[in-house]
Amino acid sequence: MDKMRIALLGGAGRMGRAIKALADCQDFPPREDGAADVLIDFSSPEGTAEAAAYCQEHGIPLVTGTTGLDDDQQAAVREASRHVPIVQSGNMSLGIALLQRLVAEAARSLEGFDIEILETHHRYKKDSPSGTALLLGEAAARARGTALSEAARFERHGRDDERRAEEIGFAVRRGGGVYGEHDVSFLGEGETVSLSHTALGRDAFARGALAAARWVIGKEPGLYGMGAVLGLDPER
Amino acid sequence: MDKMRIALLGGAGRMGRAIKALADCQDFPPREDGAADVLIDFSSPEGTAEAAAYCQEHGIPLVTGTTGLDDDQQAAVREASRHVPIVQSGNMSLGIALLQRLVAEAARSLEGFDIEILETHHRYKKDSPSGTALLLGEAAARARGTALSEAARFERHGRDDERRAEEIGFAVRRGGGVYGEHDVSFLGEGETVSLSHTALGRDAFARGALAAARWVIGKEPGLYGMGAVLGLDPER
Amino acid sequence: MDKMRIALLGGAGRMGRAIKALADCQDFPPREDGAADVLIDFSSPEGTAEAAAYCQEHGIPLVTGTTGLDDDQQAAVREASRHVPIVQSGNMSLGIALLQRLVAEAARSLEGFDIEILETHHRYKKDSPSGTALLLGEAAARARGTALSEAARFERHGRDDERRAEEIGFAVRRGGGVYGEHDVSFLGEGETVSLSHTALGRDAFARGALAAARWVIGKEPGLYGMGAVLGLDPER
Amino acid sequence: MDKMRIALLGGAGRMGRAIKALADCQDFPPREDGAADVLIDFSSPEGTAEAAAYCQEHGIPLVTGTTGLDDDQQAAVREASRHVPIVQSGNMSLGIALLQRLVAEAARSLEGFDIEILETHHRYKKDSPSGTALLLGEAAARARGTALSEAARFERHGRDDERRAEEIGFAVRRGGGVYGEHDVSFLGEGETVSLSHTALGRDAFARGALAAARWVIGKEPGLYGMGAVLGLDPER
Repeated sequence: MDKMRIALLGGAGRMGRAIKALADCQDFPPREDGAADVLIDFSSPEGTAEAAAYCQEHGIPLVTGTTGLDDDQQAAVREASRHVPIVQSGNMSLGIALLQRLVAEAARSLEGFDIEILETHHRYKKDSPSGTALLLGEAAARARGTALSEAARFERHGRDDERRAEEIGFAVRRGGGVYGEHDVSFLGEGETVSLSHTALGRDAFARGALAAARWVIGKEPGLYGMGAVLGLDPER
Repeated sequence: MDKMRIALLGGAGRMGRAIKALADCQDFPPREDGAADVLIDFSSPEGTAEAAAYCQEHGIPLVTGTTGLDDDQQAAVREASRHVPIVQSGNMSLGIALLQRLVAEAARSLEGFDIEILETHHRYKKDSPSGTALLLGEAAARARGTALSEAARFERHGRDDERRAEEIGFAVRRGGGVYGEHDVSFLGEGETVSLSHTALGRDAFARGALAAARWVIGKEPGLYGMGAVLGLDPER
Repeated sequence: MDKMRIALLGGAGRMGRAIKALADCQDFPPREDGAADVLIDFSSPEGTAEAAAYCQEHGIPLVTGTTGLDDDQQAAVREASRHVPIVQSGNMSLGIALLQRLVAEAARSLEGFDIEILETHHRYKKDSPSGTALLLGEAAARARGTALSEAARFERHGRDDERRAEEIGFAVRRGGGVYGEHDVSFLGEGETVSLSHTALGRDAFARGALAAARWVIGKEPGLYGMGAVLGLDPER
Repeated sequence: MDKMRIALLGGAGRMGRAIKALADCQDFPPREDGAADVLIDFSSPEGTAEAAAYCQEHGIPLVTGTTGLDDDQQAAVREASRHVPIVQSGNMSLGIALLQRLVAEAARSLEGFDIEILETHHRYKKDSPSGTALLLGEAAARARGTALSEAARFERHGRDDERRAEEIGFAVRRGGGVYGEHDVSFLGEGETVSLSHTALGRDAFARGALAAARWVIGKEPGLYGMGAVLGLDPER
């Protein structure tokens, strides 16, 4: 995957191994100054804060997919982004980044269409709905001018319960080895529009991280989302 | 639709009108004895009991899709079925009758696969999940040797909740003008099998009732389900 | 459907009847001047040219879904649009208008993803692929900077035939009473994005025409597409 | 995966590696007599013939997924199956074996429904439609009492071409990293039944081979298909 020189933090984890299967990487920190064009981080909140400081000091762009940062850790990332370009996202998939955008557009345009979000994941996933389903729901709610906390409907089970027009419904399936599927449907009186995404494996996120790494080299300092990598206007 | 002479009870209702759009029908009771080869009933529980008695007396086969019969009314249907052939089903669709059978086969064969049922209906439907989804769940549960009341899982919403292997999950979507969609998925570690049905309109049920009417003429007395109409072994 | 006064040309046709089932309409021409706020036309190329001239003369906005206009007839529409606002589209569905836009965005953003278009229609449809599938293919091709005539791949049948990266594939199904389904899938190495539309019946187009009628009243003169009705920037 | 002792022929190939990732295996031939309960073979036609002779001599059950055997090689397998139980299939997926059965049932029951088969595979697949799609088509054709060579329709592209009732249509998509999807749809006037299968990866076939291995131990000599492994009546 071309000649970009990547340093990787978190290479022993599942995402780290998926990235190493696709591209040559050196461990973090690089053995010598100037040996890396970009740092990719899938480590831990502590690791990310350390990585941000290192990137700020050495002028290296950062791509970080680590989640669960506390306020101080996130402040370190934000501070570093004043000096170097950083892509930060909890879901590195290009398709999901695009879907958020398309869902917002559809929610705005298809007035009066009911919104229902369906997600399917493997049998071991413990939280429902998925964080990504909630992200998609937020994109839809914002585009409709409401808060997801107002609009979300998490279960339908009973006898006398009609849908409210402004609801955003969530339906969840769990089973087998399904890596991850999301579908946002806009249901009108006479027609339905469905926008959906299937991740075929961890690969989708590794490829997204590599695309972000290629994109971020040479950019202006700032904190970017995956939407920017896709050429959509910056998300933050 | 050929020369079968149909008497129709409940012709003013939505199903009745759908049937009249597809086939010539006379009102019930027929003007003269021997004027009808078969009676189709989509009326009311009272109407169905009356129709059963009429069919028993005049030796006319009956197709009835009315639901909500009380014990006495159902007893009248059962008694009539000792004298004339009767097809009775709460869902006259051929596809759903077949799907019940295929779901049972898949549930038996695909040991260890997780079962998830998804249904989507228009925004005005008040009960969740649909009666048909429950029928499909019962077919799956029976084939797995459990009761649906044990296996059914009607909602997934929370943080730390892993799927039990024996669960049969239900996911529900409501919106727009969707006439009716059902999907039963068998999710394995490395593969997924999905069996699904879409009703394009009330037409599906009207056509099923007419297929049942054609089939029931000349059959032995008895109480049949739609599976028998499809040439599967009798269900009751 | 509110108090907009609609004149309808082509009310005896299938689309005309679908519109009359949803909204009160008077026949064209209106009995008296000023009796109609908007004219909806689903007639014939000749009828459309005549309707355009009438609208121009009487200052009435026009919504026309008639297809097959020759150059002179289209010129009449264009001339009228210098005086009154006109919405013209061969597919009045709101969902398809939106899908064209979303497909273009996805084709631009998801570099390196393969594009495949699938459409399903009833058994009586004689042309393949559908005009709408070709519209969607054109939106994708334009966004990728190529011509559909270059990129389109209409069949895959053989033994030793690898996909070219720039292909836009078309897959076609025909059968039963399916009203109309379109799916545009973007297939990447590790993930898939699918954008799809289902028309539940002729209703979708009638509702789109009524939405266009409500929108066009009071607009500046000009020739608009359904994208404008959706609040997207004008298409022509 | 329990204590079954597996010898594996073809362990260096892709299927072999997928099997070794799921279960302990020893290389073929086993180091000592009696060291293996079953032999799994994903090698080459020559290897399969050799394996069959070995199994026949040592009384070991065989599971073979190798394809492309010539008549002599297949005769060796057949001869061995007179002495030991052998499972042989070109597609070891449990789901596909089941789907063949369900497709046949649906094709028989849903008279007058149009049959359309859709398959999607990654961008590198060179043959269209897939061998599995053709297997499914053959199951449907046989159930309808025709030959697939008569019924198959491999492309739809043109202007004036109506579907014949007896056609079995094939639609093909190629792109990205899609491992393998098959859908057989039965399209009626008022309803649609779809039976579909998704392979999430090579894993599906490795797991099927292991299920076959567990099943075949202790069976009567004979040549079995995957249907038998599923508990369906023997296919050959």
